[in-house]
Amino acid sequence: MTTPWNYRYALRTEGMGSSIIRELLKLTEQADVISFAGGLPAPEVFPTEAFKAASDKVLREMPAKALQYSTTEGYLPLRQLIVQHMARYGIYAHEENVLITSGSQQALDLIGRLLINPGDKILTERPTYLGALQAWAAYQARYVTVPIDQDGLQTELLEEALRAGPKFMYILPNFQNPGGVTMSLERRMKLVQMADHHGVPIVEDDPYGQLRYSGEHLPPLVRLDCENLESHASNGRGYFSGNILYTSTFSKTLAPGLRLGWIVAPVDVLARCVQCKQGMDLHTSTFTQMVAYEVARDGKLDQHVKLIREVYAERRDVMLAAMDRYFPSEVTWTRPDGGLFLWAWLPESIDTAELLKEAVENHQVAFVPGNAFYPDGSGKNTMRLNFSMARPEKIEEGIRRLGAVLKERLANEQPMFALAAL
Amino acid sequence: MTTPWNYRYALRTEGMGSSIIRELLKLTEQADVISFAGGLPAPEVFPTEAFKAASDKVLREMPAKALQYSTTEGYLPLRQLIVQHMARYGIYAHEENVLITSGSQQALDLIGRLLINPGDKILTERPTYLGALQAWAAYQARYVTVPIDQDGLQTELLEEALRAGPKFMYILPNFQNPGGVTMSLERRMKLVQMADHHGVPIVEDDPYGQLRYSGEHLPPLVRLDCENLESHASNGRGYFSGNILYTSTFSKTLAPGLRLGWIVAPVDVLARCVQCKQGMDLHTSTFTQMVAYEVARDGKLDQHVKLIREVYAERRDVMLAAMDRYFPSEVTWTRPDGGLFLWAWLPESIDTAELLKEAVENHQVAFVPGNAFYPDGSGKNTMRLNFSMARPEKIEEGIRRLGAVLKERLANEQPMFALAAL
Repeated sequence: MTTPWNYRYALRTEGMGSSIIRELLKLTEQADVISFAGGLPAPEVFPTEAFKAASDKVLREMPAKALQYSTTEGYLPLRQLIVQHMARYGIYAHEENVLITSGSQQALDLIGRLLINPGDKILTERPTYLGALQAWAAYQARYVTVPIDQDGLQTELLEEALRAGPKFMYILPNFQNPGGVTMSLERRMKLVQMADHHGVPIVEDDPYGQLRYSGEHLPPLVRLDCENLESHASNGRGYFSGNILYTSTFSKTLAPGLRLGWIVAPVDVLARCVQCKQGMDLHTSTFTQMVAYEVARDGKLDQHVKLIREVYAERRDVMLAAMDRYFPSEVTWTRPDGGLFLWAWLPESIDTAELLKEAVENHQVAFVPGNAFYPDGSGKNTMRLNFSMARPEKIEEGIRRLGAVLKERLANEQPMFALAAL
Repeated sequence: MTTPWNYRYALRTEGMGSSIIRELLKLTEQADVISFAGGLPAPEVFPTEAFKAASDKVLREMPAKALQYSTTEGYLPLRQLIVQHMARYGIYAHEENVLITSGSQQALDLIGRLLINPGDKILTERPTYLGALQAWAAYQARYVTVPIDQDGLQTELLEEALRAGPKFMYILPNFQNPGGVTMSLERRMKLVQMADHHGVPIVEDDPYGQLRYSGEHLPPLVRLDCENLESHASNGRGYFSGNILYTSTFSKTLAPGLRLGWIVAPVDVLARCVQCKQGMDLHTSTFTQMVAYEVARDGKLDQHVKLIREVYAERRDVMLAAMDRYFPSEVTWTRPDGGLFLWAWLPESIDTAELLKEAVENHQVAFVPGNAFYPDGSGKNTMRLNFSMARPEKIEEGIRRLGAVLKERLANEQPMFALAAL
């Protein structure tokens, strides 16, 4: 293509990779494909009637406010609601600690802008959330990674990784995207202690923490860090004096189409976040913030989360049972206690990117090849499966199809092994 | 304040300045102050009933789409509507040239991310839009500036400024914020020719183009550039093969609380914009995009713009007449043909930042000191006045108060002049 102007050659998108999530969203639009690829909540659990009543109320009672510019920090009643809601999950903050963002993707971008200089290393779990890698490519981040197992990040491997001098650690302790695993309490405590010891801050990303279907809620890292601080340095500032930035979202509990997330940070750090956000988009939509507040207030968010838990727990169970039934024995996978995803490891010989083409074209079933979630380019034999979007009968059928794809591929590989063994 | 962790010292917000726009918004909240400071549209012209009907329709007919994740490019019917609407203002684009952004502030941030490396120079008008300076501080931009007069950027001074080697030029040709001036057709043609000759792209920011109250619509830079290109290089690609990125917004024609703007760019550049935006916030709220489409469709946007023009034209006229009546003869100002702002020059001896304190505290009237709009730190004797927000009788009274402040200050300065003359 002719590009007559020099600026086109100088565009700063190197390293931002191909638009993987976006391309995947397109796959899910084909009607005959059963997709486990997206990270989409089930639209049938959206509280549509509540949204209708809320929009109507906001535009009837407060139109001049809802449609006008507002402050960068966000709609105060919504920030207060978030503070109350988080307290039930062990996070004790004030409204001055909370900044509303345009989805938690913007929180990640903002954190990148605040903290990352070109070449800075970030310590992540391996695999880790693709959206964070995409956000931070713009800041020319590099990575040092620590593998996960069923209990989350393997803290016994952390000491060595920390020697690489990361700027911060990026951790998803609950029902990690993509792994589906949850970090044990023991490891959480170890992680927070080591962060303290090495003076490395943590970015705690918690989009799914409320969506637990089995087991007991575990204290967030930010809580453990504050307890830790209070015990060895009673500086009188109470919570959120610590070393951790926490981020979450309404995308999985209310609706992602609103684009509403938030950051929780110590007051002095939050002031810097506000400054950054002002240059990014002035503020998040006043209208969607006010609508979300009306939908969530008076305990309605809690009630709605209960409904989502029931629906998704069933789908998780259906998927796990189907995998037990249809997947070949060479494949292993995680058994999540919550969230939207599970993770599968295939034999090393299988490249899931190639497998996806076959699965979509010949069997009308889709997943995400795991490689994209590995900052180090490994993980070619892994895949992420979403269990929130498809209905139970579709999950059953999709896993049956995927099992067939896997068995076929493994059968074709046998002769090669046999040959190699000769 | 104790900051126990090293990351707080390394936060990358140097140069982002104080939160000027935000602090100003706070001023406007005092009930007894008549504020000409903000850039707020008048809430009484928000099409509230249309928003109510639109929200209801969207949530009744398409809730699963409106509340779900969507593509980064934006809601297709809205992009098509923007294409049709822009054509009436002389901009001929396709939907593939349009990306929806979270307000045009995000468009500016995105353009910064795409184009600016630390230390790159940007050529701007002097004064120029504060939000752009705030967005680009994050990318460590530097500036070379060209002064405006009543006919916009003084193109006869452009050649020398271009010798500094700017990465791009940032231009607001219509009813410039903050100056209120409109670039003449002759200067537009000269600017586009020189941009072509020097190979320097232009970012054309046009939030107010539709809000013209007197005079005739002038062709946008992007149109002149395309005509130019077609005449000397018929590459068969038609419009938007050129050198200009164009950005606009619904903030001034529908409502700023939605946070909806857009970028128009050649297809290959737009693809890079989409990649950037994906990392920034995935996409703009599906819900607000669909609601805006319903409010704007079927010619309703045009009808509404007509109403806004009537209301704001009256306010502009009231402000200009009051300034003629109440302002001392030492003060000069622009006479805008549209937009939301006008600009005043005071005698060099007056610092408007100091004057603001006096005006707010003793006379309950507010404006924006002009200095913040000068990348080179000059303009201390200038001010921006907004005429869209206050009702006519308030404008009259506010200008009367401001005239009194100015006369008082100038009277106090006379003895100093006399002394200096001795």
